[in-house]
Amino acid sequence: MNIILFEPEELSGDKLELTDRRARHIINILAAQPGDQLKVGRINGPTGRGTITKTTKNRVTLKISLDSTPPAQAVTDLILALPRPIMLKRILAQSAALGVDNIYLINSRRVEKSFFSASLLSRENIREYLLSGLEQATATRLPQVSIHPRFRPFVEDVVPIVSRACPVRLAAHPATTNLLPQVTPIPLRDKVLLAIGPEGGWLDYEIVKLREHGFKPFSMGARILRVETAVVALLAQLDLLRSVA
Amino acid sequence: MNIILFEPEELSGDKLELTDRRARHIINILAAQPGDQLKVGRINGPTGRGTITKTTKNRVTLKISLDSTPPAQAVTDLILALPRPIMLKRILAQSAALGVDNIYLINSRRVEKSFFSASLLSRENIREYLLSGLEQATATRLPQVSIHPRFRPFVEDVVPIVSRACPVRLAAHPATTNLLPQVTPIPLRDKVLLAIGPEGGWLDYEIVKLREHGFKPFSMGARILRVETAVVALLAQLDLLRSVA
Repeated sequence: MNIILFEPEELSGDKLELTDRRARHIINILAAQPGDQLKVGRINGPTGRGTITKTTKNRVTLKISLDSTPPAQAVTDLILALPRPIMLKRILAQSAALGVDNIYLINSRRVEKSFFSASLLSRENIREYLLSGLEQATATRLPQVSIHPRFRPFVEDVVPIVSRACPVRLAAHPATTNLLPQVTPIPLRDKVLLAIGPEGGWLDYEIVKLREHGFKPFSMGARILRVETAVVALLAQLDLLRSVA
Repeated sequence: MNIILFEPEELSGDKLELTDRRARHIINILAAQPGDQLKVGRINGPTGRGTITKTTKNRVTLKISLDSTPPAQAVTDLILALPRPIMLKRILAQSAALGVDNIYLINSRRVEKSFFSASLLSRENIREYLLSGLEQATATRLPQVSIHPRFRPFVEDVVPIVSRACPVRLAAHPATTNLLPQVTPIPLRDKVLLAIGPEGGWLDYEIVKLREHGFKPFSMGARILRVETAVVALLAQLDLLRSVA
């Protein structure tokens, strides 16, 4: 936990009182004392410093001072064929850490149907994984996650709306020859909607549908990567394409 | 397991007989039958096709036909402050999957000393993690892993030798302003020696030592990433810098 995150409504004036896992982290892991300063951030808002004014066994009180600059909006939206639960947990944390605006967890022929009933998909669990990523990265922008159990209605009805903000639409797909730099304007300036398929890849039918909605398929090369590795690799590569001259 | 890997000495003529976890995978997971073809690869050698000639309860016999082209040498060497064991396991698998030539696991002030005695560091375990990455990626080049429990002798005595093949030397370090594209020739053509520090980063003293040996420090931005995420992100970004015009 490299930053202590809080919701706006937890703050009264400049006072933040914690009694949950954040308090335990400050007391037991950081062994922080009154007077110590910690990095803090308001979820979806600015970061700043929290000065500890009081600690008891289970409770920490901080005086909060926030910077004026709100965090930049993330510039990638992610469409992800729902991965197996244990992998989803790490993907959500890593996506939040690397910076993603919206995450659409969708169905695809090669997604196991049971994944959609996994308890990991509860709102609280998803939020917990995302927060762990933000707390690692010292970021505050909480990605918005939505779940879409049917492929075709998602692509036909949801994509046309959510893709308006994303001029660059990319679909990772092994069976193609173009690599990422061949389908992306460099330097990259616009928001990207990135679709990553399930283990085994999208079906041809699914790629046709994605193409119809403006997605350019690209290959990550001959190596077959786990979805988790592919998500981190692609978010990092898109980030890099924004900073090359 | 997207490829069945074998050692040269396991092959007799064009016949490969398997009785271990590879046989169990072929029988139980793939449910493959005589006549079926599987992707195979000789460790550090070419890939090809294996045709199943016989299966029994615990044994699979394949007729192997290898392509003539050996795999390209990986173009990144990785220096890694030894991470905690559970993370090391995933990092080794992902590094092998993404393609790394040499991995130097080294000490640093912020590495917990106990990590060096962890049983995960046994030869067999390291090999197992690397193989799992190759089997995922359908790659055959097994990274060479060496362990260096003292920082200074590694940098002063080992780096001068192993860095000869690596004109580009980079050290990920949060407390710097240059980003990766500012310290890397683009497009990237030479072999890279990439140093990634422990959780919490390199000490100033360690960065000075790395600088003395030609390493350019660079930052990955304001977000603090877990080592595992940083390794994947950076290997993917270097890979991309090799393919941009």
